[in-house]
Amino acid sequence: MLCIAFGFSDSLAQTSTPSDSALIRSIYDEVLTNGEAYSNLRTLTKTIGHRLSGSPEADRAMVWGADLLRLYGADSVFVMPVVVPSWTRGDVAAAYVTLSNGEREELHITALGGSIGTPGDSIITAGIIVVNQLTDLDSMEADFTEGKIVLFNRAMNPVLINTGSAYGGANDQRGRGAIAAARVGAIGALVRSLTHSLDTLPHTGAMYYSEEVPRIPAAAISTVDARKLAALYKEDSNLRVSFIMNCTALPDVEQGNVIGEWTGSEYPNEIITLGGHLDSWDIGEGAHDDGAGIVHTIEVLRALKAVGYTPRRTIRFVLFINEENGNRGGEKYAEIAASELEAGENIYVAAMESDAGGFSPRGFSMDAPDDLVAQVKEWAPLFEPYNIHRFKKGWSGVDIGPLKELKKRPFLIGLVPDGQRYFDFHHSSSDVFENVHKRELELGAGTMASMIVLIDKYIPAP
Amino acid sequence: MLCIAFGFSDSLAQTSTPSDSALIRSIYDEVLTNGEAYSNLRTLTKTIGHRLSGSPEADRAMVWGADLLRLYGADSVFVMPVVVPSWTRGDVAAAYVTLSNGEREELHITALGGSIGTPGDSIITAGIIVVNQLTDLDSMEADFTEGKIVLFNRAMNPVLINTGSAYGGANDQRGRGAIAAARVGAIGALVRSLTHSLDTLPHTGAMYYSEEVPRIPAAAISTVDARKLAALYKEDSNLRVSFIMNCTALPDVEQGNVIGEWTGSEYPNEIITLGGHLDSWDIGEGAHDDGAGIVHTIEVLRALKAVGYTPRRTIRFVLFINEENGNRGGEKYAEIAASELEAGENIYVAAMESDAGGFSPRGFSMDAPDDLVAQVKEWAPLFEPYNIHRFKKGWSGVDIGPLKELKKRPFLIGLVPDGQRYFDFHHSSSDVFENVHKRELELGAGTMASMIVLIDKYIPAP
Repeated sequence: MLCIAFGFSDSLAQTSTPSDSALIRSIYDEVLTNGEAYSNLRTLTKTIGHRLSGSPEADRAMVWGADLLRLYGADSVFVMPVVVPSWTRGDVAAAYVTLSNGEREELHITALGGSIGTPGDSIITAGIIVVNQLTDLDSMEADFTEGKIVLFNRAMNPVLINTGSAYGGANDQRGRGAIAAARVGAIGALVRSLTHSLDTLPHTGAMYYSEEVPRIPAAAISTVDARKLAALYKEDSNLRVSFIMNCTALPDVEQGNVIGEWTGSEYPNEIITLGGHLDSWDIGEGAHDDGAGIVHTIEVLRALKAVGYTPRRTIRFVLFINEENGNRGGEKYAEIAASELEAGENIYVAAMESDAGGFSPRGFSMDAPDDLVAQVKEWAPLFEPYNIHRFKKGWSGVDIGPLKELKKRPFLIGLVPDGQRYFDFHHSSSDVFENVHKRELELGAGTMASMIVLIDKYIPAP
Repeated sequence: MLCIAFGFSDSLAQTSTPSDSALIRSIYDEVLTNGEAYSNLRTLTKTIGHRLSGSPEADRAMVWGADLLRLYGADSVFVMPVVVPSWTRGDVAAAYVTLSNGEREELHITALGGSIGTPGDSIITAGIIVVNQLTDLDSMEADFTEGKIVLFNRAMNPVLINTGSAYGGANDQRGRGAIAAARVGAIGALVRSLTHSLDTLPHTGAMYYSEEVPRIPAAAISTVDARKLAALYKEDSNLRVSFIMNCTALPDVEQGNVIGEWTGSEYPNEIITLGGHLDSWDIGEGAHDDGAGIVHTIEVLRALKAVGYTPRRTIRFVLFINEENGNRGGEKYAEIAASELEAGENIYVAAMESDAGGFSPRGFSMDAPDDLVAQVKEWAPLFEPYNIHRFKKGWSGVDIGPLKELKKRPFLIGLVPDGQRYFDFHHSSSDVFENVHKRELELGAGTMASMIVLIDKYIPAP
């Protein structure tokens, strides 16, 4: 069943109808039978690969995405220019620990995104401090901390069922560790990788500097090595760590959000935004983060066209740039939305994001008023046949987050896939196509497309 | 929080209490913090490996399982003897297709479990027939079918969200393909592997013969090769397929169900059965099928002891034998249960099984009367913090299935993990430890242990 007839009423109805159930079935059938998300993800990851903001790969990904949106029938495709930061990891990131007895052991590290290199791109060597909290440093004497390398060693909390919450509870170390360490005179920071997995892969991610303290180099260290180093330090507090990195900041460059627009048949100035982010970190292939969200987004267009759906509102398929290290794409999109709203040109009704991986979908998280959350919960029976159960208030997504500031705030919603495996791959060299499962990816696209239809039909304009 | 106080009422209450919520939290904390299911699975899969009924590996697994149940504090551990079939795959399984132009291409096959070898352990060569349904053969002329090799090529239906249903809808080919083929005079059967994955791994599984028709050799062929062979046949109906296998049946041997018993504090003769199956197919490591169910079962004992739970009823931790090719372990267990029930010794209150893999748990499937299903659904809020949503009537498990025939029928319930990846590995060489995820496995154990507590406290005896 690839094409079914729709009987639209003239105005926006308030509740779902039996035909919604049939339409949703046809959408899932389409993505599970003729789905192209998986093969599109293969192309993105294997012919382009990772695509950090500012890189030539990100340029190529923008062209690829625009071509695909055209192929699948977007009415117009354009690039919204965004000036993005540019940074290069360089080709050296190495570390080792030297024990008091002279023995050496290698440590697996990679630069955190945005870090400076080690001074003169040379090896730095120092004693270490091991802390679990940023604030642990505050109570330490200056002569103990000065000139040291700080190991931030707090693990993600395993008892939190939501791995995103465990990530959120540990990532202050990555984001602000270098600032906290520099404040007490340290010369470098090593941050335990943000993953539950015990392995030797360092996981990168954004880090920040403050104008108030010196910039010091900061690296992610694998969980196995962080544990090992902390254990060695307990036995031998005089051990010394050496590391070298030649990463460096480059001048900003202009790239942009790639946008495909499918014009609404009834309310063309009411905008539903749907997206993921096209940029990725520069190790691995950005397959789950966020290649999955990109091909989800594009597959929604393809599948809704294939089943013969006609949107009432305009649906914008947005391949955001620079989520990973600045969110300038999301900020720019919201800035333009605000000006259009101000000018009375467009109303931003809703925005959906997929940026939690291509895993088996569980439901949605909504950053929205209680009445709209309650309305969506009433649609649960429509999703029950697809094992989609989760409809909760909460976080929606980084790219669409700035839309919260609009005077007329859109309904924000994020896809929630099963999160147990996400941080195994996240920001590491193992975030590759082979770790994405075809059916799980497809089910995510079907779930998003189905929810987009219901939003198009039933969510009131703000 | 590893040990909390419990205030039991004197009789079985009907509804859950706030203390249940705290107890369940402590159980999940325990398995996610101190869980041993994953390391136990590593031992089972890496030091013993696969363990087909009748094999020396199955003997070793029985000893390992009994030791572990003792280690974790079962009051008594014993083996319930079961005479099981024995069959050996041999060391040869190979196939190729020869086109009319003389070109040859290799095909990836493996014997279906229980198949005879090719006659004289020699290569057989014949033309082929390609069918999608067993009944397709009925309408074919004898001179077309006689002496041929039949390729059963029906794929699992991709639009079914429940992959178990898709499996059930295709496995008549594997179970009865050789009978249907022999009935029309064919000399061999090749069955498309039961998986959604398009790869070159053959997936084995049980097949059956009938006394009424000759026994012919039957093999699983990988999905990629089944597709290829069917496509080649369309172009070249005179192609010929050759295959050889030296599998063979051996005499039955005595092995058994390994049972650990934790005596109930109030109702020791009311039995709650909890289990998985210790045997596996003889390729891969039986990691998901059903090493996961085995270590789930054992972890429930460990975790409930660790949090200080005292069961009211007797909990039996059963490592069933021979699920894969006979279910004689499950049959024997039910037979003895029936005699104990008849003698007034024991009442079988409930039985839970984990035999759907070590993936992220989604909920439970209950083969039970509507009122008990409704009672369990009322516990949904207790599981909501753990993202466990599915509480439906349906299939419970093969091993516990024969208990349905008891005069006083127990409440039967099966763990339902996310099933999208299960058949990628099922019965193939990729069902190995590395494809099981630590947290997903642990969450399954926590979910089972929590449900066992609620069953112990609230499910009425039949």
